[in-house]
Amino acid sequence: MVDGLPRSVRLPIIIALDPPYGVDPIGWCQGIIDDTVDMVVGYKIGLPLVLDCGRNDLGEIVGRMGSDLLRIADLKLADIGDIMVSVIRRLKDIGFNAFIVHGFTGYRDALEKVSGYLRNSGGKMITVVSMSHRGSIEVIDGVLDKLLDIALKSGSWGVVAPATRPKVIKIIRRKLGGKVKILSPGIGVQGAYPGDAIKAGADIEIIGRLITRSSDPRRTIMELHSVYR
Amino acid sequence: MVDGLPRSVRLPIIIALDPPYGVDPIGWCQGIIDDTVDMVVGYKIGLPLVLDCGRNDLGEIVGRMGSDLLRIADLKLADIGDIMVSVIRRLKDIGFNAFIVHGFTGYRDALEKVSGYLRNSGGKMITVVSMSHRGSIEVIDGVLDKLLDIALKSGSWGVVAPATRPKVIKIIRRKLGGKVKILSPGIGVQGAYPGDAIKAGADIEIIGRLITRSSDPRRTIMELHSVYR
Repeated sequence: MVDGLPRSVRLPIIIALDPPYGVDPIGWCQGIIDDTVDMVVGYKIGLPLVLDCGRNDLGEIVGRMGSDLLRIADLKLADIGDIMVSVIRRLKDIGFNAFIVHGFTGYRDALEKVSGYLRNSGGKMITVVSMSHRGSIEVIDGVLDKLLDIALKSGSWGVVAPATRPKVIKIIRRKLGGKVKILSPGIGVQGAYPGDAIKAGADIEIIGRLITRSSDPRRTIMELHSVYR
Repeated sequence: MVDGLPRSVRLPIIIALDPPYGVDPIGWCQGIIDDTVDMVVGYKIGLPLVLDCGRNDLGEIVGRMGSDLLRIADLKLADIGDIMVSVIRRLKDIGFNAFIVHGFTGYRDALEKVSGYLRNSGGKMITVVSMSHRGSIEVIDGVLDKLLDIALKSGSWGVVAPATRPKVIKIIRRKLGGKVKILSPGIGVQGAYPGDAIKAGADIEIIGRLITRSSDPRRTIMELHSVYR
């Protein structure tokens, strides 16, 4: 389901590494990665962890992920193109190979620049076209069609759309065809069940606490095998 | 023009601290701050510098800014509310007192949460409602009215709108009245002249390279006095 990734026993899951407050984030992340690195297609790290760790420790964590896996920096970049490129350059140095940006920043002087930079230097652009929270309906969902045009025009490798709204995933799949991956967060604590987004047309489900806060992450993933078969 | 800030000799300017590639960012920032701290109303730091510095060095830099000045973390946050709050909590610990977020994330479970958190813990929310690059026209500018509603509903202290489009600033001022500050980037290298945004109705101009790359930042600001008189 995910090109270029070993498919044998891997499930189409990206684990969102969001450490609980108060733990040593480095040890916590490394524990989960070591436990699951042969079972999933990648990991996603957000801004809170980036702020907690700093570059060196982040490099340690990211280096622990297999080099053929998706190592996603989920900073939801939403700035002018030059700034986004400047951030992505630093994230690439740390070891990330995929970068989440916001489609609503537009193409010209925004995703255009990110896309040009990643085409030259290597790396996947993943564009947010819908979000999982209720506020997404107020503005973003009303301009979904424009956001998809921008995602396509900029040659996004993937788009992000929430498992909590399978109808939106269906609309997106219809418009994008098979050219662009759909990655879906919102599974578990946020309300959707594992497998829901894939059934609606997504390629990969992003799962956090359901796996990372379980007493045995490896076993939890094993138990999900039947869902994704 | 900026409530609660000493007004004597200060100009309504926030300096964007974006170090050039290759310099020691900490020394560079501290030099400019020490040189200008009695002349402007605040400073703004973006994600590239945050990544370069890490928490301790950032704390050093931010601590150098007067405690009555605006110390703006310009990460252009655009995530669900819980994540934005979790990032802002960390930025507050570092010493920032104002936080730039994106209005298009919506109110419910997004700015609503940021607003609630900052009301309790102290700190200013500054909401992006328009951007300076060309791509802003593709999506954002078409929903300006919605973004302003969201900025108002969430009790934003200020909004960000570009000096490069004075007409947009005028529309915003008309809608917001005097309740909300307008902060305008886009001056200098990006095309607008110092004073342009204030003339159109903004409260504060955000200026970067025009000051920080001049051979004598202090003198450059002195020379701007006549513009803002």
